[in-house]
Amino acid sequence: MLRLGWIQTLPVHGDPAANVAAVEPALLSGEADLWVLPELFSTGYLFDDRADLARVAEPVPDGPTARALVSLAVRGRCAVVAGVAERGDDGRLFNSAIALDGGGVRAVYRKVHLFDLERRLFDPGDLPFPVLGLAGARVGLMICYDWRFPEAARTLALAGAQVIAHPSDIVQPHCQAAMVTRALENRVFTVTANRVGTEERGDHRVEFTGGSRVVGPDGRVLSDGPVDRPASGVAEIDPAEADDKRATATNDLFADRRPEMYRIDQGAASARARGT
Amino acid sequence: MLRLGWIQTLPVHGDPAANVAAVEPALLSGEADLWVLPELFSTGYLFDDRADLARVAEPVPDGPTARALVSLAVRGRCAVVAGVAERGDDGRLFNSAIALDGGGVRAVYRKVHLFDLERRLFDPGDLPFPVLGLAGARVGLMICYDWRFPEAARTLALAGAQVIAHPSDIVQPHCQAAMVTRALENRVFTVTANRVGTEERGDHRVEFTGGSRVVGPDGRVLSDGPVDRPASGVAEIDPAEADDKRATATNDLFADRRPEMYRIDQGAASARARGT
Repeated sequence: MLRLGWIQTLPVHGDPAANVAAVEPALLSGEADLWVLPELFSTGYLFDDRADLARVAEPVPDGPTARALVSLAVRGRCAVVAGVAERGDDGRLFNSAIALDGGGVRAVYRKVHLFDLERRLFDPGDLPFPVLGLAGARVGLMICYDWRFPEAARTLALAGAQVIAHPSDIVQPHCQAAMVTRALENRVFTVTANRVGTEERGDHRVEFTGGSRVVGPDGRVLSDGPVDRPASGVAEIDPAEADDKRATATNDLFADRRPEMYRIDQGAASARARGT
Repeated sequence: MLRLGWIQTLPVHGDPAANVAAVEPALLSGEADLWVLPELFSTGYLFDDRADLARVAEPVPDGPTARALVSLAVRGRCAVVAGVAERGDDGRLFNSAIALDGGGVRAVYRKVHLFDLERRLFDPGDLPFPVLGLAGARVGLMICYDWRFPEAARTLALAGAQVIAHPSDIVQPHCQAAMVTRALENRVFTVTANRVGTEERGDHRVEFTGGSRVVGPDGRVLSDGPVDRPASGVAEIDPAEADDKRATATNDLFADRRPEMYRIDQGAASARARGT
């Protein structure tokens, strides 16, 4: 069994040390084997421009946030998936999720589908959607707006993910409900850690919607967060349930797929040309 | 503008003429430009075996049900998408959806993902997911359990569908809610026509869940049926709204897709091998 937890935070903008300190009690609580934190949990979300963001972005795995989380994972005997602003080579900046345990950073995912203002700040992800062994489960990583693209969760599930860890800073409706569909269509567990609060920069104001949740392969919501305040939650799951892809006694969701009938690899241009 | 309607029926098992007569008032009402009927609306759902089913399956487009619907489409000046049991060549049997208007049958879709007992009765669909011009919109066809596979709706949307017509006989929960996700992730209209009532055959008993609905590209439910009785409903839509794939001012859901990052074309065997 795996105790799968989310921490729903209200980050202090631009203060990674404070934001790490805020999750320390939960990480040391012993209540979960795997904790998922929100997207950009260490930095906050809105920045004036890339230079503004670059001041708080950190390298992975050697930046202070990643190292502090590994240290907490050692002390708390837990694994962590956390959203961070990653400073890559050559001045590149990524909206990343790092997966780590007491042995160090195990995987990095760089957000593939950037949302709205993120496009001005971050470089698009250049690494495959990762699935790794973590806390005794096969865990796949995606970030927030990736939910809107069914290919993201599908890619992770087909690569063997039993649990999809989903750090998020959700500002549009529908994501939390859609994660039930993502869990059901892939028969996987999903854990969405979303933040709360609002941020303002210049003309932009965003309000984050909380509602962090764990969903099971049968679509049941196993743990559900409040919409308006920091919180944490844990669901005890058996990751092996996600290996059973049966939708009925005779239907296996993966064996029943018929890729030869799908036409989803063409680019948008050809799709548009066909459609209009 | 397109008046998009669903008819939620309680079919008489094995009596296509009675079931066509039951939808005649709606089809002649002038209330909708495009009507969608449930899966297997003309025959009912449970059959002892293929021979039992073959007695009521009909050829398309020359069977009595298809011809009667075309005649009603002429008189009602409407288009229709209807689920029928199709008798194909060489004794093949398909769980099909036909799209037609006063000019005749325009497209046939044969269910690609067969559900549970259907696997004993029907041959799997052997034709591409179709998108056709119908009632002034680009309409794509899928049937019931296809909802569980995101590739079905995605294939239709990428091929240009503005409206996904979805004849259904839903017996599991979650489909109606998941159609919101299908609409949102593709920014298309969806219209699910589901039946009500129960059927029993031998050891099998199935209960159908109604709740037919139209969902808009923004995830709003534009028309919603009762769960327990025959009904019909119409939503007035502008199909062109589905050509706007913007999720935000700067995000286009199709242009933002990154097929090079997706790994969804491998078969189940390779996925399983990788996952275990």
